[in-house]
Amino acid sequence: MQAFLITFCISAMDLECASQETVKQGLLARGWPPIKGFSKHVKTKVFEFFSHLIKLGQDDPRRVVHSLKAGLALTLVSLFYYYQPLYKSFGVSAMWAVITVVVVFEFSVGATLGKGVNRGLATLLAGGLAVGAHQLANLSGRIGEPIVLGFFVFLQAAVSTFVRFCPQIKARYDYGLLIFILTFSLISISGFRDDEVLELVHKRLLTVLIGGSTCVIISVLLFPVWAGQDLHNLIASNMEKLGIFLEGFGDEYFKMPEDGESKEDRPFLQGYKSVLDSKTNEDALANFARWEPRHGRFQFRHPWKQYLKIGALTRKCAYRIESLNGHLYADIQVLAKREIRSKIQETCTTISMESGKALKELSMAIKTMVQPFAADIHIENSKSSVKNLDTLLKSGLWDDETDLLEVVPVATVASLLIDVVTCTAEIAESVNELATMLKFEVVEPTVSPEKTETGQPKIGIS
Amino acid sequence: MQAFLITFCISAMDLECASQETVKQGLLARGWPPIKGFSKHVKTKVFEFFSHLIKLGQDDPRRVVHSLKAGLALTLVSLFYYYQPLYKSFGVSAMWAVITVVVVFEFSVGATLGKGVNRGLATLLAGGLAVGAHQLANLSGRIGEPIVLGFFVFLQAAVSTFVRFCPQIKARYDYGLLIFILTFSLISISGFRDDEVLELVHKRLLTVLIGGSTCVIISVLLFPVWAGQDLHNLIASNMEKLGIFLEGFGDEYFKMPEDGESKEDRPFLQGYKSVLDSKTNEDALANFARWEPRHGRFQFRHPWKQYLKIGALTRKCAYRIESLNGHLYADIQVLAKREIRSKIQETCTTISMESGKALKELSMAIKTMVQPFAADIHIENSKSSVKNLDTLLKSGLWDDETDLLEVVPVATVASLLIDVVTCTAEIAESVNELATMLKFEVVEPTVSPEKTETGQPKIGIS
Repeated sequence: MQAFLITFCISAMDLECASQETVKQGLLARGWPPIKGFSKHVKTKVFEFFSHLIKLGQDDPRRVVHSLKAGLALTLVSLFYYYQPLYKSFGVSAMWAVITVVVVFEFSVGATLGKGVNRGLATLLAGGLAVGAHQLANLSGRIGEPIVLGFFVFLQAAVSTFVRFCPQIKARYDYGLLIFILTFSLISISGFRDDEVLELVHKRLLTVLIGGSTCVIISVLLFPVWAGQDLHNLIASNMEKLGIFLEGFGDEYFKMPEDGESKEDRPFLQGYKSVLDSKTNEDALANFARWEPRHGRFQFRHPWKQYLKIGALTRKCAYRIESLNGHLYADIQVLAKREIRSKIQETCTTISMESGKALKELSMAIKTMVQPFAADIHIENSKSSVKNLDTLLKSGLWDDETDLLEVVPVATVASLLIDVVTCTAEIAESVNELATMLKFEVVEPTVSPEKTETGQPKIGIS
Repeated sequence: MQAFLITFCISAMDLECASQETVKQGLLARGWPPIKGFSKHVKTKVFEFFSHLIKLGQDDPRRVVHSLKAGLALTLVSLFYYYQPLYKSFGVSAMWAVITVVVVFEFSVGATLGKGVNRGLATLLAGGLAVGAHQLANLSGRIGEPIVLGFFVFLQAAVSTFVRFCPQIKARYDYGLLIFILTFSLISISGFRDDEVLELVHKRLLTVLIGGSTCVIISVLLFPVWAGQDLHNLIASNMEKLGIFLEGFGDEYFKMPEDGESKEDRPFLQGYKSVLDSKTNEDALANFARWEPRHGRFQFRHPWKQYLKIGALTRKCAYRIESLNGHLYADIQVLAKREIRSKIQETCTTISMESGKALKELSMAIKTMVQPFAADIHIENSKSSVKNLDTLLKSGLWDDETDLLEVVPVATVASLLIDVVTCTAEIAESVNELATMLKFEVVEPTVSPEKTETGQPKIGIS
């Protein structure tokens, strides 16, 4: 329908342009660009919009599937209107099933379940209380009734709205509170005109349950999207992004710039930026995941908090990397001095490379749910390189004729890399905690293909 | 009502405990702690919850006002049910006014207006299209009608759901698309049972408009909360938080630790942490602010994008500060060596102090909408201190007997501080851009009380 609408708008615009064209052909011939320009602008915009939509679908085909599922769920509950026997029992109340499907059906199972449970429980609770309020108001006579009802509506709306500000409640029960206000108000107010309040509550609750179950069933049975799985993948891929940066950083930092090269040529060095702002996304996914039942390798009470902890540590590491990135193309003059470069190049590159490999191993360990043995080896390697760096700096190799000013940027990069090693070790520790909690599979490092690729344990060599 | 509910639950629990107590007094006497423990636990939790709520209200009294406003709006629209002449003209459709108020009334004017406009336009558009779909379906006969309607509902739901994935559309029109799906489905499906589709659309639209206007009017007239003002304040206060950290950092870094002191004693050094994750909040506020009409010193097309740019630069600075903070209590052994400390202490402290003052001045300039002249002086001071630091490092004062290993952490801190100066200069530049866009008031620095407090321009001294 949207597509139809957009096409309609464009055709309308084009038609307008065309008619103007015939009338003002003379004008155009004399060069009247605004109309032609506008039409071209609209066409370009619409083309961009559609290519953007196509890209959205290609990036994550689950989006297309979700849209079809939403259409299916809505078409299914609309049977309440089309099929006479169903319509007979529910009547106009069937509308609530439709509304429920539209607002409850979300991308992930967790979000759908969370909203469904919130909506169901809130309707039940608010319905019950509204019946109580209705009975109380009934006692106050025809004139007193609206006043008592109005007071109740005001009170519950004000209190519930205020409670919604509480962050912990907002995170999990915000939608429930909204539906509580809605249902309580609607039923207690409707009760003023309709004495069949219990009947109203009963129908309302039943249709909401039907709508909610339709959503949950379709969401779980047809190509389910699990928020837990998404969080799991997000945490792992964030770690991998940092790993990719670190693996490439050493070579990139110490390399002399070549003609025509720029930062944009290195998209792999920019991937970490999305990690900096990933907190909101992680928190939301963890909140949804808590609603999800056991699925695949995830239990109902999966330690999602531990994922958030790993995520926070990964972000902390990303902040250091952001500082490192600032040095990437700023220290070129200093590095041009060959002697400084050569002295710490190897050690710094090893530290960066080994932490990067450790992070990639940790990421792989989470993805495959296998004990991260290989990561420990890389962390040991990076730690021993840090020790080498210390020895190198202590040896006083520099004092002879080196200008300290030239050492500062390189020393900073070294120091930030040492910080990164500390962060990586912290991440590894929390991933190990997760591995213990979830009893990750033990695969001997000698068997792992990752292991052979990353080489023999290099402890104390480098 | 919530309070009533909670109290009810607690009393119920207490009652249960009490009855169990009388029955099982013997048990309790023999020491049966679980019940007592549980009751105490519940009481503690409830007490915590209420103190948390009170704190929420004290932190931002606008929350209490908003809750009362929400209650008022809902009570006002419920008059449609209580007042006979109004009920006569709208009937059960008045329900839509109530629903609109519950879901549209938001904390800030911008959010309320955005949702209201989205809901109004989407209802209008979807209503129109649904009438068209209804007419088309009518042509297909009694058996074909539900099939054609079902097809339309499926198509529009799938397309609209997919379009909602588009980030630019999600940011501003997500709610509109939801309401579009809802209204189109409800009206085209209801049309199957009710031939007065136009009447239905008309009533629906009118009640939505009434509900929406009630929200907007109450939101604007009674103690309005402007998202634009909030964004303005947030950007300024984030900058101030970084300023506070930097002002305190120098002294804190170079100070020798005293007994019984810990990081927790310095809450002013932790304030910057909230800046790291402020992106989502800033984006949301900017989205809301775009809907807001002219208010106070803010125009309709206020340059909110510039605020987001300043916010992004502030965050970039916060990442550097996060790295600095990592060094705050880690380098104590190195700093114990008096000679290293004394050599750069003064310069580093000045850099940190001056950047901090610059950020606080910039924050104040935004808050009061006055040209940030004083900030430029502090930035110049910090830049000249950076030059002094360069000279100090170049002078080779260190080479004699200094272990380079001991210099690295201090050099890192110095280097990060230099980065911070660069970031501060960038922030100042973008604040100056904002000042030009909004024609900030020019107050000569000699007149400004801030100026006299921060001292004479110290360029080249320090």
